[in-house]
Amino acid sequence: MIQRKHSSLQGAVNKNRLEFLFDGIFAISMTLLVLELKTPELTERKSAAELGQLLLHHGATFISYIISFIMLGIFWYRHNQYFHYIQRITKSIFVFHIVQLVFVAFIPFCAALLGRYTTNRLSLAIYLGCVTMFQWCALIQWVAAKKQYALIPRMDPSIYDRFKKGSITSAVICTLLFLQYLFLLLLS
Amino acid sequence: MIQRKHSSLQGAVNKNRLEFLFDGIFAISMTLLVLELKTPELTERKSAAELGQLLLHHGATFISYIISFIMLGIFWYRHNQYFHYIQRITKSIFVFHIVQLVFVAFIPFCAALLGRYTTNRLSLAIYLGCVTMFQWCALIQWVAAKKQYALIPRMDPSIYDRFKKGSITSAVICTLLFLQYLFLLLLS
Amino acid sequence: MIQRKHSSLQGAVNKNRLEFLFDGIFAISMTLLVLELKTPELTERKSAAELGQLLLHHGATFISYIISFIMLGIFWYRHNQYFHYIQRITKSIFVFHIVQLVFVAFIPFCAALLGRYTTNRLSLAIYLGCVTMFQWCALIQWVAAKKQYALIPRMDPSIYDRFKKGSITSAVICTLLFLQYLFLLLLS
Amino acid sequence: MIQRKHSSLQGAVNKNRLEFLFDGIFAISMTLLVLELKTPELTERKSAAELGQLLLHHGATFISYIISFIMLGIFWYRHNQYFHYIQRITKSIFVFHIVQLVFVAFIPFCAALLGRYTTNRLSLAIYLGCVTMFQWCALIQWVAAKKQYALIPRMDPSIYDRFKKGSITSAVICTLLFLQYLFLLLLS
Repeated sequence: MIQRKHSSLQGAVNKNRLEFLFDGIFAISMTLLVLELKTPELTERKSAAELGQLLLHHGATFISYIISFIMLGIFWYRHNQYFHYIQRITKSIFVFHIVQLVFVAFIPFCAALLGRYTTNRLSLAIYLGCVTMFQWCALIQWVAAKKQYALIPRMDPSIYDRFKKGSITSAVICTLLFLQYLFLLLLS
Repeated sequence: MIQRKHSSLQGAVNKNRLEFLFDGIFAISMTLLVLELKTPELTERKSAAELGQLLLHHGATFISYIISFIMLGIFWYRHNQYFHYIQRITKSIFVFHIVQLVFVAFIPFCAALLGRYTTNRLSLAIYLGCVTMFQWCALIQWVAAKKQYALIPRMDPSIYDRFKKGSITSAVICTLLFLQYLFLLLLS
Repeated sequence: MIQRKHSSLQGAVNKNRLEFLFDGIFAISMTLLVLELKTPELTERKSAAELGQLLLHHGATFISYIISFIMLGIFWYRHNQYFHYIQRITKSIFVFHIVQLVFVAFIPFCAALLGRYTTNRLSLAIYLGCVTMFQWCALIQWVAAKKQYALIPRMDPSIYDRFKKGSITSAVICTLLFLQYLFLLLLS
Repeated sequence: MIQRKHSSLQGAVNKNRLEFLFDGIFAISMTLLVLELKTPELTERKSAAELGQLLLHHGATFISYIISFIMLGIFWYRHNQYFHYIQRITKSIFVFHIVQLVFVAFIPFCAALLGRYTTNRLSLAIYLGCVTMFQWCALIQWVAAKKQYALIPRMDPSIYDRFKKGSITSAVICTLLFLQYLFLLLLS
């Protein structure tokens, strides 16, 4: 019984390895975005004008790629910020990391969809849905960490509140945007 | 001779690096799952209804992706649990890690097959076969670690038994499911 | 307030994890280069001559792949060199790492373009533009690190100057090459 | 001057990060092998017999994949073994690591070629050439490490000799096999 308690104090999962899996999936998702960029088929191989035109034609894909890359960079930054204060990984923190990573791994698909069908409302709705789920997972992790005494002990309570407020704000804004798009979609 | 013994005590492979390779291959396999998701070809670019229909049509692939992702997450979690108690990596632990990783790297292919041919019994049999092999490798690693004195010394024996029982249960259930499917396959 | 200062002294992001993300994206970009190499379609499966001819036909892609791999290796080496002297990661160092990584992840696409349309001036211009942006990001990081007191304290000032000079030289040479190509492109 | 010497003693590159890049590229190469495995096109979706037949038809690709995976596992194991004794990374060790990694990243392409055109002698020659170059790079790294005093100081000289002998043997066998195939190729 004591063993059990102690083992649960150590955390369900090694923090370094979860960090590792998380960073790995982020690095791969960020780089996979580029796989959607196909080398165009030219009728005249030497024509710079034709290549330029074809690349411009896929301009939306490029923009979707860059925006998604930077967005993932910001998500990674924020994870870095609050993960610093998590001392041990409880089962629920782990579960919501895996759920969160499902959506991270989904981003390249969503970005490809959005880059290709920019004018299609459903593709933006899917993208926003994915981002919204990510944000909620981050919020749940943070609240669960507090409830399960998984935060570092000598942490300033104002830091907890600041991150919680930030997470709620992001999650709510994303949800509203998502719902608005879903609403527009159902109307049309 | 003493040198040899000492070197074998250190383990054949650096534990951190094996952890690293393992986590890396898991991260890549989990993210590659998404590569199977292709952006559909729309006849009318703006039609949300058409996009929705096409994505629903590939619904089985999405479900196969999410299930495989979560399954790999659970496998990773369990590896994390028992790997914590392994102190040094012997040659046989290393060999069964590599064999295990072959099957992990195979999962994206199996998930793609299952997502595309859900009603085909062979695709599920292949998937189950892959998972079954993974489970047996995990069990062999754990038993070999005990036999070769590679576990941490002050470990509670009940932990060894608990993990062994869990591994046997998983391996046997997977094997039975696999054999049942193989049997159904041969009958049809 | 004191908390804030202290937290900013610690750096916005954990140095090890940024290193990790950076190395991960480099490793993936370097390996993705090879994905562009497609197995050719042979009319006669056993003909070594036909296979040889088809591979030689794609010779430019192979060369583009090897050059890009080695170039990324050199970039990684140089990052290794100066990152050693950076003690903590400020917000601007992080931001310019993310911008830099956008261009690293872009290299496989640029290499594919260059390998396929070697004689097309635009493809080389895009490649050079990508490399140029990478170099400027490296220079900005280094100067920002000095300005924000993020370098290790007992560092020899001559090291700072040496790296700065090297970075400026690389950035200026790349910019000149890039501008020259852009100029040739607009003339033709 | 003293600074210079000291900096060269530290090694050109951080050992941990090189290990990291190496393991990362290995993990990716090993997993990319699977990307060559395409889900076959079935005329009758439910037919297990047809799926089985199509998969057996691509049996050579599966075998090529598994062999390459295990081979990379062995290479990784051996790198692990001798890298343990390298204390700092000199410029030449780094350069030959990058050259070696070019060939590692090439393996998925070679395996795909071999799996598809198993009866074509050129595809095996390319595969062997790639492996041969890998082996020579490993040997050069090891000899260079000794010459540049980069090995750990209290190392048993017999270990150096054992690894050197092993590396020479592997490199020579691969070279002979490669040359024999090249010779057969030129005759036919």
